[in-house]
Amino acid sequence: MTILHYELCGADSAQVFSPHCWKSRMALEHKGLDYKTVAVPFTQVATLEGGDARRVPVIRDGDTVVEDSLAIAEYLDANYPDTPSVLGGPEAAALTRFVGNWSQRNLHPAVSKLAMLDIHDALADTDKAFFRRTRENTLGSTLEEFSAKFPKDGAELGRALEPFATTLQGQPYLGGKTPLFADYIVFGALQWLRVTSPLDVLDKTSPVGEWFERLLDMYDGVGRSVPKAA
Amino acid sequence: MTILHYELCGADSAQVFSPHCWKSRMALEHKGLDYKTVAVPFTQVATLEGGDARRVPVIRDGDTVVEDSLAIAEYLDANYPDTPSVLGGPEAAALTRFVGNWSQRNLHPAVSKLAMLDIHDALADTDKAFFRRTRENTLGSTLEEFSAKFPKDGAELGRALEPFATTLQGQPYLGGKTPLFADYIVFGALQWLRVTSPLDVLDKTSPVGEWFERLLDMYDGVGRSVPKAA
Repeated sequence: MTILHYELCGADSAQVFSPHCWKSRMALEHKGLDYKTVAVPFTQVATLEGGDARRVPVIRDGDTVVEDSLAIAEYLDANYPDTPSVLGGPEAAALTRFVGNWSQRNLHPAVSKLAMLDIHDALADTDKAFFRRTRENTLGSTLEEFSAKFPKDGAELGRALEPFATTLQGQPYLGGKTPLFADYIVFGALQWLRVTSPLDVLDKTSPVGEWFERLLDMYDGVGRSVPKAA
Repeated sequence: MTILHYELCGADSAQVFSPHCWKSRMALEHKGLDYKTVAVPFTQVATLEGGDARRVPVIRDGDTVVEDSLAIAEYLDANYPDTPSVLGGPEAAALTRFVGNWSQRNLHPAVSKLAMLDIHDALADTDKAFFRRTRENTLGSTLEEFSAKFPKDGAELGRALEPFATTLQGQPYLGGKTPLFADYIVFGALQWLRVTSPLDVLDKTSPVGEWFERLLDMYDGVGRSVPKAA
């Protein structure tokens, strides 16, 4: 049965950009499962699949609905044991949670400082209003004031990526010889930036840049199929 | 056969404080192997076991000499397969390298800013001179000038630990239900601070503080057996 994968999209429904949705999308690809993307704008996320406060990604697999990218990865590994493990077993899964928290705490703020306005601009009008209201409430300033505070040279993102870049000097993927969900966590953050922002801060010839290009090419280039914002 | 574990020590040979040596010491304990600590001051490290530029930890196991805490963990898992895996398998080992690089890049600088002078003060006179010369060369300033630049409230260390603290909200150890080498990496950084510095910046009732206390108690309290600097 085809798994439904609800993903956040911009005004263009093909422009799926959420870092968390890219984590679960790549997990589905990793496992070679049959799935279909359902693109959902911000203002329709909360009520997906009968929810009242949902956050994407959400999957429906038959009668089962699962929310949250890591919970989806755990569900897929538990329920499709004959496909390649995306978490890499219980010990790696435990460490993957740390990678997720590190990305959320270090990479996501750096991407937000670069792309906050670009993300806004990519949305349909109704979603723009929702995004502005919710984000400005959290930020305590307008999106424009927030964005203006930060340089757009990618230096903070580069510093945040340093432990990851160092790791890639010794192994091709965070998961070792082949990628695991931990790789898709970092991929999600960089794909979020790539799809929403015309900024080009990642050196394609750096270890991280080369790793990102390899991941964009994987699984018939599903990551590259969403064009970079121009 | 008893494994020899060469560890860095202060003027008091019982005061073993190196973060990297605590990683390998805890790995030996984790695996329940018979080992003996050989305490080595800074100025005797380079020529250990016939080396000319060694860095501790170093182990000798029969005819085999292994240097570097992660290489030691890999060696122990490969050569003592009937004892509990300390890396948790190849996937977790790959992610553990990231944890090591994260700790080195984020925790170690925060500890250095807190304890640089305390580490110096813990050494024997010959080692003090060596430590001062090598560190001041790297820092481009005196130890005192370096130390004076940074507050001693532990705020930077607390911020650096955030992704780890968040992870502990969902699981008792970085390795999941039981500790793995990844835990010993973080333990090493905090034990380094505990053994060398009278500063008390870690809240024992926080998730990280509770985790640290549990690790200090493990393996018959081997971590706690080295007293905190007063």
